Amino acid sequence: MANIDGVLKAKQIVVPELPQPRFSYIPGRIAGKLIYVSGQTPTKGGVLVYKGKLGRELAIEEGYQAARLAALNCVAELKLVLGDLNRVKQIVKLNGYVASAEGFTQQPRVINGASDLLAEIWGEQGKHARKAIGVFELPDGAPVEVELIAELR
Amino acid sequence: MANIDGVLKAKQIVVPELPQPRFSYIPGRIAGKLIYVSGQTPTKGGVLVYKGKLGRELAIEEGYQAARLAALNCVAELKLVLGDLNRVKQIVKLNGYVASAEGFTQQPRVINGASDLLAEIWGEQGKHARKAIGVFELPDGAPVEVELIAELR
Amino acid sequence: MANIDGVLKAKQIVVPELPQPRFSYIPGRIAGKLIYVSGQTPTKGGVLVYKGKLGRELAIEEGYQAARLAALNCVAELKLVLGDLNRVKQIVKLNGYVASAEGFTQQPRVINGASDLLAEIWGEQGKHARKAIGVFELPDGAPVEVELIAELR
Repeated sequence: MANIDGVLKAKQIVVPELPQPRFSYIPGRIAGKLIYVSGQTPTKGGVLVYKGKLGRELAIEEGYQAARLAALNCVAELKLVLGDLNRVKQIVKLNGYVASAEGFTQQPRVINGASDLLAEIWGEQGKHARKAIGVFELPDGAPVEVELIAELR
Repeated sequence: MANIDGVLKAKQIVVPELPQPRFSYIPGRIAGKLIYVSGQTPTKGGVLVYKGKLGRELAIEEGYQAARLAALNCVAELKLVLGDLNRVKQIVKLNGYVASAEGFTQQPRVINGASDLLAEIWGEQGKHARKAIGVFELPDGAPVEVELIAELR
Repeated sequence: MANIDGVLKAKQIVVPELPQPRFSYIPGRIAGKLIYVSGQTPTKGGVLVYKGKLGRELAIEEGYQAARLAALNCVAELKLVLGDLNRVKQIVKLNGYVASAEGFTQQPRVINGASDLLAEIWGEQGKHARKAIGVFELPDGAPVEVELIAELR
């Protein structure tokens, strides 16, 4: 089995450090062999890098990059809670929410940005069941929100 | 315990064969005794049979049938991943997303189409925790998207 | 470990009794050590106490109270299925859906009403992974829908 830190280094994927949570919810919760992490938007250092709706302010390629960044923040949550990303056996489920203007129906192409990142990091074990839906508004005007469930070794 | 293939035959429910997945996500993922399947829309042979929003292009009864078809595709995912539907012990959770025009608030009546199919197939064990919400846009203009979690024997 | 009935009494939190379910879905389903409960809106005795969209009919503080009430109904589902709330070891995941008018992006502040209630009842074990998103329409015109996953002892 591949060492994930080596994979991240080889692929030049930098997992950010997240700020400590301030509310009644937490970055992630372990239950048995499953870990659930909280929904993430495409922020860096707590600030949104992408803003607006797909089909209006953002094109698909920007949405793809936004979904990738949101998924990277989910990986950061995994690291924050688990300490070591090698504890992840496989990604089980990914949920992707795309802030969509009327008539924008390419949500899967946007959320592929999140799915592809997970497959880059964990290979076949990074592939997952998924849904991608178009919502009306997301926190602070984010274009995407992503969350995931992983299984631990 | 009933043989599910016999139940399907008696009720004339035909579980379709799904195309092989082409992306970083997969039809379903098993984690311990749970299986998560990916969100499905009301497609046949990869083509949407129903299109548009509830409260605008589609009436509730059409939405109900669309939800039933989307759930049937989820059953097809279970079959694709498990090989044998008798491995399903019970349906645990169903999530239903309804593309809704302004003012359409009958999402539960639409998603009943999915719930009823699962109860037809698995009886009491087909009943499940559920949510039904109204979203703005779904992939390719689908009126509903459905996903589920099942427990294995 | 605190007796939850004592905590509820001390904090004057009254868990309602829910009507029996009438459809193909059920208030909650146990799978292994996890329990999934169905989505709840801010109803009392089956009637919506809050109605409308955030950013239009409802202000954040009303949405917060609506989310708290919806979460209380989820606690009622836990009680209905489990009999004894002391069987809950921890809250694992909370999903919050906020009916949002165009431009309303404060979903997390609304869903804090749900998160805070769970932390009031179960303390650190009540904290959870979470997502909060803005949807277009909810059943019967509800402003919020909340659902959760808990782990059993």
